[in-house]
Amino acid sequence: MSHSSDALDRFYSVIPAGGIGSRLWPLSRADAPKFLHDLTGSGQTLLRATWDRLAPLAGDQRIMVVTGRAHRAAVEEQLPELADLNVVLESEPRDSSAAIGLAAAILERREPGVIIGSFAADHVIKGPAAFRQAVVEAIAAADTGLIVTIGIQPTEPAIGFGYIKTGGPLDIDGAPSAQSVNSFVEKPSPATAKRYLSSGQYLWNAGMFIARADRLLEEIGASEPELLAGLLELAEAWDTPRRGAVVDQVWPKLKKIAIDYSVAEPAAVKGKLAVIPGQFDWDDVGDFASIAKIHANGRKRDLAILGEGARVLADSSSGIVVSHTKRMIALIGVDDIVVVDTPDALLVTTSANAQKVKAVVDALRLSGSSDVL
Amino acid sequence: MSHSSDALDRFYSVIPAGGIGSRLWPLSRADAPKFLHDLTGSGQTLLRATWDRLAPLAGDQRIMVVTGRAHRAAVEEQLPELADLNVVLESEPRDSSAAIGLAAAILERREPGVIIGSFAADHVIKGPAAFRQAVVEAIAAADTGLIVTIGIQPTEPAIGFGYIKTGGPLDIDGAPSAQSVNSFVEKPSPATAKRYLSSGQYLWNAGMFIARADRLLEEIGASEPELLAGLLELAEAWDTPRRGAVVDQVWPKLKKIAIDYSVAEPAAVKGKLAVIPGQFDWDDVGDFASIAKIHANGRKRDLAILGEGARVLADSSSGIVVSHTKRMIALIGVDDIVVVDTPDALLVTTSANAQKVKAVVDALRLSGSSDVL
Repeated sequence: MSHSSDALDRFYSVIPAGGIGSRLWPLSRADAPKFLHDLTGSGQTLLRATWDRLAPLAGDQRIMVVTGRAHRAAVEEQLPELADLNVVLESEPRDSSAAIGLAAAILERREPGVIIGSFAADHVIKGPAAFRQAVVEAIAAADTGLIVTIGIQPTEPAIGFGYIKTGGPLDIDGAPSAQSVNSFVEKPSPATAKRYLSSGQYLWNAGMFIARADRLLEEIGASEPELLAGLLELAEAWDTPRRGAVVDQVWPKLKKIAIDYSVAEPAAVKGKLAVIPGQFDWDDVGDFASIAKIHANGRKRDLAILGEGARVLADSSSGIVVSHTKRMIALIGVDDIVVVDTPDALLVTTSANAQKVKAVVDALRLSGSSDVL
Repeated sequence: MSHSSDALDRFYSVIPAGGIGSRLWPLSRADAPKFLHDLTGSGQTLLRATWDRLAPLAGDQRIMVVTGRAHRAAVEEQLPELADLNVVLESEPRDSSAAIGLAAAILERREPGVIIGSFAADHVIKGPAAFRQAVVEAIAAADTGLIVTIGIQPTEPAIGFGYIKTGGPLDIDGAPSAQSVNSFVEKPSPATAKRYLSSGQYLWNAGMFIARADRLLEEIGASEPELLAGLLELAEAWDTPRRGAVVDQVWPKLKKIAIDYSVAEPAAVKGKLAVIPGQFDWDDVGDFASIAKIHANGRKRDLAILGEGARVLADSSSGIVVSHTKRMIALIGVDDIVVVDTPDALLVTTSANAQKVKAVVDALRLSGSSDVL
C-alpha cells in the first residue's frame, strides 16, 4: 500500500452547510438556504450534488455535515445515507473556523491522525473525476503536515472571486502538481484580474481546505487560542451525555472568524500552505449572474429558465428566469434580465446588478419586511 | 332659451364599454377589461371617471352604456345610478359602428331629434370643465346637422394616435371654435408627427363623436346600408318583448366596422364633419408606457407604482410597477421597466416595448394559454 492510498483511508469529508446565500434572494431564504436549491437544472440540490461528488472518495460513512438546527430535517431528507454520528448541529452560526474546527476536533478525538477536507455545500463543480483527482493529491500533500487548498485554474478575469498567488512547485510524493502558496489576495479590480489571468501565477480561491485535523487545530490555536480551547472543550463532551450542556455554554461564545483568516493566511505566511491546481469547472454560484452564466454555457443572449413546470413566454429577451410559482411569465425586449418569481416575493434586476441583491435583503430586514426573508 | 341650451336638453351620452385593452395584459383581461381598472391612481375605475365627467352635461338619466353581457354586473356595480333602460348589452362584440349605431337607433325611436355623444369608457381626461365646454360646443354644431368630433390639441409629436387635419373655421352659433375637417390621417412616423405638430393644423383623433342620432344613422346608411337595416330592426324590437329573439337573429350578422370608417371619414369627404379643438389633457392609455407617462407627470426617471397595498422596494430603477398581488416586489437597477404582477401572470418589459404586449397576448392565445388571458 502506497503512502497516499494509506492517507486516503484516513480521509474524512466535512460539508459546512450554513450560508443562506443572500445574493440569491428571494430564491434563497432563511428557511430555504442556497444549498437546498437546484441551481443548475440537474434535478439535484447543490447539497446532494456535493455529497455525490465526495462519497466515492471515502464512502458514505466518512462524510460529516455541519449545519444549523433549523435545517436538520431538510438536510437528512436530502442525504438519507448521512449517519447520525456525522451530523453536527449548530445552535447558531459562528462562521467557518468554528464549524470546520469543531468537525476537526470531534474527528481527531474519534480517530487520531484523521485527514479532513472541507467543501462548501453550495458550489457547482463540473468534472467530478478531475475534482476527486485534485482531492487525492491534496490528501497526499496534507499527510506531510501542510495545510492544502485546491485552487481553480482561472478561465476569465473574474472579479467576484479571491485569488491565490502560487509560488513554485513542491516535490511531494503523490501530489505531483502541488505548489507552494505565495499569498492570498482579495477580489481584484477588472484590470488587476486581467493581469492575474495573463501572468499564469494566480488561481481562484475556491475555499476548499484539506489538512490533518491535528494540524488544522494547531493553526487555529496559533492564531485564535481561545477559539481552539472552546473547540476542544466541545469535542471532549461531544460523544458524551454532556454534549447539550457544553454546547449551550461554549458555542455561542466562540469567535466568529472565517477559516481563511484563522488558518489559511497565517499558514501561507509560514510557508505551511500548499495548493493543488484544480483542472475542473467551478463556480460558487454567488449571484444570479453566475447562475445565468452557468446556464448560458458561454453563449450570450440566451434566456435560462429554472424551475419545475415554469411557464415562460419570452420575446427578444435574455438573462435568467427562476420560477417557483406556476404563474405565466412574459418577457418582452429585456436583455440580461434577472427575474425571480416566488410565491411571496418577486425580484427584477439585471446581471450587472446581481451583486446588489444582498443590499436589498439588508434593506428589507431594516424596514421590517422579514416575512419575505 | 338660446338655441344651444335647447340642444343640450336633447343631448344623450353614450358610453361604449367594450374593448379588453390587450396591450395592458395581464392587468386587462377578458373578465377584467381596461375600463374596469383604475389606471391613474385616482381611486376610480376609468368607467366611473367617464360617467362622472359626463353626468353634469345632461344628468344621470341621460347616459347610455353599451357593454358585453359578461360585464353587466361589473358595470352596474360601478354605476349604481345607471337606469335599466340605459343598459344595452351586446351578446358578442361587433365593433363601434354597431354599438354606437344601435344606441342611436334606440334613442332616436324613443326621442326623435335626440343628439348623442359617444365617449370611450377607457380614456383618461384631465380638465373635466374644459372637456364639457368642448362637448357643449360640439352639441351646438351637431344640432346643425354636422357630424362633430372633438380633437385634442397635440402637446408632443405622438406616433401612437391618429390625427385630424383641420380646414378653416366654421361660423356656427354656440360653437365659436368649430372648424371644418380636411381629412383623417393614420398614426404617423416620428418625422411626420413632428411636421404635424409644428404646422398647427393637426389635432389628435380622440374617437369622440357627437351628432344628431338621425344624421348618424343617415351616414351609416349611406356607407353601410345593410348595417343600418339591421340596426333599425333591432331598435324597432328593442322596447318590446321581441327584443331577445331579434337580437339573437340580427346582432351576430352585423358588419364589424369602426365608426371612423362608416361615418367619420365619409362625412369628412362630404364636408359634413366638424371638429372642436379640446383644450384639455387626454390620453387613450393604450399601453403601459402611456400609464407610466401619466404618472411621471413629465418627470423622467421616476418609478410609478399602481395597486392598493403594493409592496415595492426599488433601488436605482424607473418605469412602472403594477401590483395586483400583495407580494414584495424588489427592483434593482432597471430603467424604464414595466412590471405587472397579477396572481396568475407576470409581465416584464420596457416602456419602449409596451406596444408589443398585444403580440404576446396573441401568442399566448395561439399556444393554448387562454387561462391567463
